[in-house]
Amino acid sequence: MAFVRIREAKEEDCGNILRLIRVKFAGQKTGSQRGSERRGWRGPELAEFEELADQVKISEEDLRADGFGENPFYYCLVAESLPSPGEPQGSCLVGYGLYYFIYSTWKGRSIYLEDIYVKPEYRGQGIGSKIIKKVAEVALDKGCSQFRLLVLDWNKRAMDLYKVLGAQDLTEAEGWHSFSFEGKVMKKLAEK
Amino acid sequence: MAFVRIREAKEEDCGNILRLIRVKFAGQKTGSQRGSERRGWRGPELAEFEELADQVKISEEDLRADGFGENPFYYCLVAESLPSPGEPQGSCLVGYGLYYFIYSTWKGRSIYLEDIYVKPEYRGQGIGSKIIKKVAEVALDKGCSQFRLLVLDWNKRAMDLYKVLGAQDLTEAEGWHSFSFEGKVMKKLAEK
Repeated sequence: MAFVRIREAKEEDCGNILRLIRVKFAGQKTGSQRGSERRGWRGPELAEFEELADQVKISEEDLRADGFGENPFYYCLVAESLPSPGEPQGSCLVGYGLYYFIYSTWKGRSIYLEDIYVKPEYRGQGIGSKIIKKVAEVALDKGCSQFRLLVLDWNKRAMDLYKVLGAQDLTEAEGWHSFSFEGKVMKKLAEK
Repeated sequence: MAFVRIREAKEEDCGNILRLIRVKFAGQKTGSQRGSERRGWRGPELAEFEELADQVKISEEDLRADGFGENPFYYCLVAESLPSPGEPQGSCLVGYGLYYFIYSTWKGRSIYLEDIYVKPEYRGQGIGSKIIKKVAEVALDKGCSQFRLLVLDWNKRAMDLYKVLGAQDLTEAEGWHSFSFEGKVMKKLAEK
């Protein structure tokens, strides 16, 4: 089995990260019947995949500009599969964890894991947990007092993992709801 | 009636912002019986207020360092009440909106309103809406595609306001749950 290491993303990884984001998005959209777990899902057909993946609105240039300039909007960890000695194929990215720093008026500096993904064929090796652990290390290093994330309620596997790792479901415990003003509505709001 | 203007916070506002944060925190903790709206709440007694407000873990120095250095962790708008000509008292802060930039792997640059507060005696004048509008303006100016926030489900007034302004409740519509690893748990996670 190839060795998988977790490392900080470099600017030249952006194309491969975007490919993984599109694969994840298409999979989630076809697999996310709310309230039911995905079982035996094998991925969309190619045409369907392309149509769905087109709904990812960011480009490789966006990822480069927004993550690797001054005042980056995000940071990213990647899981890279390294070939065993003598194997002909090179290394490849098999997962990512995209995070950034947020701020609580009660608790100060905090870290937020926006998105995490591991390719299905690489699951069950603890790669996701390693990414989460690494984000917690960054958080401690930067003086953060909490580590937050959002999870979809049909994604039982992820919810259970976070709970086992000690996270609290603040929506369940305290009633926090996530709200969003999307593009056009936000524009109207700004122009009022 | 005094005129209230919304402006960007300056470093020297941090002491007054922290005072408002502590007032808000103490009020929310005593007034937040889950599932019931706050009615006729007049604020905690002084000793109780001080004890509760002590649970706000950030200091004025934190606010100064984290919002006004290079790579700030947050940005802040303040609502400032300006005296009418001839009035003896000076201006004072009556509200704030603390925000920062986040990043979506599907939609790119986004803005997040972490916390918003207007002193009770200044409510009903549209100050909160002006802060929200200003955050939307910043979002457009910075090329953001969405504007996100979290609301407590017992805070019907806030939920209704955001819905009237066009926001979508993503927890209700899609099942997003907010999770958090708090201090000690996060440390354990990092040290595993």
